[in-house]
Amino acid sequence: MRTSAGSSCSDLNVQLFGESRLSDMARHWRFAIVGVGVVGEWHVRVLSRMENATLAAVCDVNPAQPAKAFEKNKITGVPVYTDIHEMLRKEQIDVVTVATPSGDHFTPATVAMEAGKHTFTEVPAATTVEGCHRLVGTSERTGRHCVIMENCCYFRNAMMVLNMVRHGLFGEMLHGEAGYQHYRIAQNVFDDHGNLLWCGEEEARRNGNLYPTHAVGPVGQWLNINRGDRFDYLVSVSGKSRGLNLYAAEHFGPDHPLTRREYALGDINTTLIKTVNGCTITLYHDTQAPRPYDLIYRAQGTKGLYMGTLDKIFIQGRSKGDTWETLEGYSEFEHPLWKALATRAEGTGHGGADFIMLQRLIRCFQTGTYPDMDVYDAADWSVIAPLSEQSVAQRGRSVD
Amino acid sequence: MRTSAGSSCSDLNVQLFGESRLSDMARHWRFAIVGVGVVGEWHVRVLSRMENATLAAVCDVNPAQPAKAFEKNKITGVPVYTDIHEMLRKEQIDVVTVATPSGDHFTPATVAMEAGKHTFTEVPAATTVEGCHRLVGTSERTGRHCVIMENCCYFRNAMMVLNMVRHGLFGEMLHGEAGYQHYRIAQNVFDDHGNLLWCGEEEARRNGNLYPTHAVGPVGQWLNINRGDRFDYLVSVSGKSRGLNLYAAEHFGPDHPLTRREYALGDINTTLIKTVNGCTITLYHDTQAPRPYDLIYRAQGTKGLYMGTLDKIFIQGRSKGDTWETLEGYSEFEHPLWKALATRAEGTGHGGADFIMLQRLIRCFQTGTYPDMDVYDAADWSVIAPLSEQSVAQRGRSVD
Repeated sequence: MRTSAGSSCSDLNVQLFGESRLSDMARHWRFAIVGVGVVGEWHVRVLSRMENATLAAVCDVNPAQPAKAFEKNKITGVPVYTDIHEMLRKEQIDVVTVATPSGDHFTPATVAMEAGKHTFTEVPAATTVEGCHRLVGTSERTGRHCVIMENCCYFRNAMMVLNMVRHGLFGEMLHGEAGYQHYRIAQNVFDDHGNLLWCGEEEARRNGNLYPTHAVGPVGQWLNINRGDRFDYLVSVSGKSRGLNLYAAEHFGPDHPLTRREYALGDINTTLIKTVNGCTITLYHDTQAPRPYDLIYRAQGTKGLYMGTLDKIFIQGRSKGDTWETLEGYSEFEHPLWKALATRAEGTGHGGADFIMLQRLIRCFQTGTYPDMDVYDAADWSVIAPLSEQSVAQRGRSVD
Repeated sequence: MRTSAGSSCSDLNVQLFGESRLSDMARHWRFAIVGVGVVGEWHVRVLSRMENATLAAVCDVNPAQPAKAFEKNKITGVPVYTDIHEMLRKEQIDVVTVATPSGDHFTPATVAMEAGKHTFTEVPAATTVEGCHRLVGTSERTGRHCVIMENCCYFRNAMMVLNMVRHGLFGEMLHGEAGYQHYRIAQNVFDDHGNLLWCGEEEARRNGNLYPTHAVGPVGQWLNINRGDRFDYLVSVSGKSRGLNLYAAEHFGPDHPLTRREYALGDINTTLIKTVNGCTITLYHDTQAPRPYDLIYRAQGTKGLYMGTLDKIFIQGRSKGDTWETLEGYSEFEHPLWKALATRAEGTGHGGADFIMLQRLIRCFQTGTYPDMDVYDAADWSVIAPLSEQSVAQRGRSVD
């Protein structure tokens, strides 16, 4: 997987995005949002409440969308554009957040960087190997960040585990496991009228781990991916595809075209990644079979492990015998960001993680701190999808 | 993985081991045990308490071992041999159970079948691809069973899940996951004097899933492996090896040869299996990093899943919303064997599973019922170890 982030690229991080450049920039950050649908509305809401950020403009091909979002959040006076180029030309913008439909982040992110703007993109950053390569190239050439907004990295448990890893509680890290295990056909695949939504179109033609970043994001941080280790190769296996046909049969009838057609995506995809330093990662993609939501989040080292499915931890010499403990006894590892922001984050999206993520990223820019998630993460986490497709199509062949 | 159990072989099952042949045999079964160490002592104990079985003879290269086992279980008058050939020649035996050290089951099982005896072997049945092939060939040629004694298949939850699968509760099966996740260095790898035990020798020179059967046994039964589906190919990835060196350093000192040497086995191995009918299986081997015991045991279909780590179940339309339930609400799926034998099995090994397994296998022979685990299972479950080694050694190459 040297497709995107070779160590030679990662080594450039500090020079490219060093403290001096960032802290020279305006302390009050002017944001523009591209794409104001469901996710973009959340960007509107959170950005309008940030202390050190101004929502300077938005852009959507359908201007009714921003109007709805503004009304919902009682916002007035923010200019609306239907063309990103025009917006970037006319408005003074520091950062562009990209919340266009899920497969369409690459183009606006690239346009924004080319216009000299830093970019925060929703996941995935790109859907092809070439797209991931090009994001890295554009970011390096323009000297502009392409931060992937992987909010799962800011979950309270994920950050507590990260803090434990940094303090050596697990010893040397060995393994991570995570899964996007989320039955979401009703929300994402079909509309109520029997048409395929964008996710449905993807699942009809692609077979692999199509949505890897929620799973791999926190694991990548725990294992220091692109900060001392990097992905080496992956193998990926998909099982049979049943869920979409069964759902369509139940909701649209046995003779509906959506029931009778074929879908490429296997209901359960499992992908293994080996890192250059000898760690392993197991990733699940499991969205088409009815099940409770479970991201797994296993972080394992030579001295113990956290198991997110159980929300339990075991640390040799601290846990009694070989029994699991709750996280309550480990409150000294609460991540400083959560200690500082938990109260203010209450009631915002994803248990507060969305708020904390954006606060943190803006704070990084203000203080010249290198952001937690960069273009190499954006590329490496996103490229798992197309590489897993290659592997699945070749009986689990390993792909570098 | 047509190395051992092609469908053509499986099709012969009924003719080879049909009801007529088995029910012709003596109703009272005469057993011999080969190898009377820790596991063999358990064979002595359970067999001496079975109603329809006689412990007719035992064999061990060290006759002090059977003497100890007999004393512990207050058994007298059972002849002891040091040579399996002599025992089989002199005694009237129906079934030989093989409890020799873990890597040495192949030879006594083969000798027993060649002498016309059915064989119950401890796991794994063989440690090489060729050995697995030859077990199948010997069993087919001699018309004698080689039953793999995978006691995990008789765990209460595993059998309840099997019963649920058979009743279609999970819909069409999609995926199974299981792991031999058992930190057992202290028991199996080193002795107290700083020498490698047999498992340690294996872990020093082999890298893969060295002990797959406890994990794959129940999963294989849930997915109907060798009864309508079969393994197609596997991919396997091992991470770095740290646990044995760390353990040796702590217990024998930093300069001890066992601390300074290299061990082949990665602390965590993950193996993916694809079946011909499009199911997938994830297997973990995780014995060298400190952790609570957890076999995982995930059984997932188009209508829901059981998750053994949580001991929870979710069935669409029965479970409320998308929340897990306990098994208590599913008592109608208690397996008939557990309903019938739970009380009698109390206090025997592995929560009663050992007793139920042997009762069931003897009952199969008495009634002419085809045994739950046959030579094809023995070969297919065992061959995962050497095939995973091949895959690990070639960057996760898929192995048929």
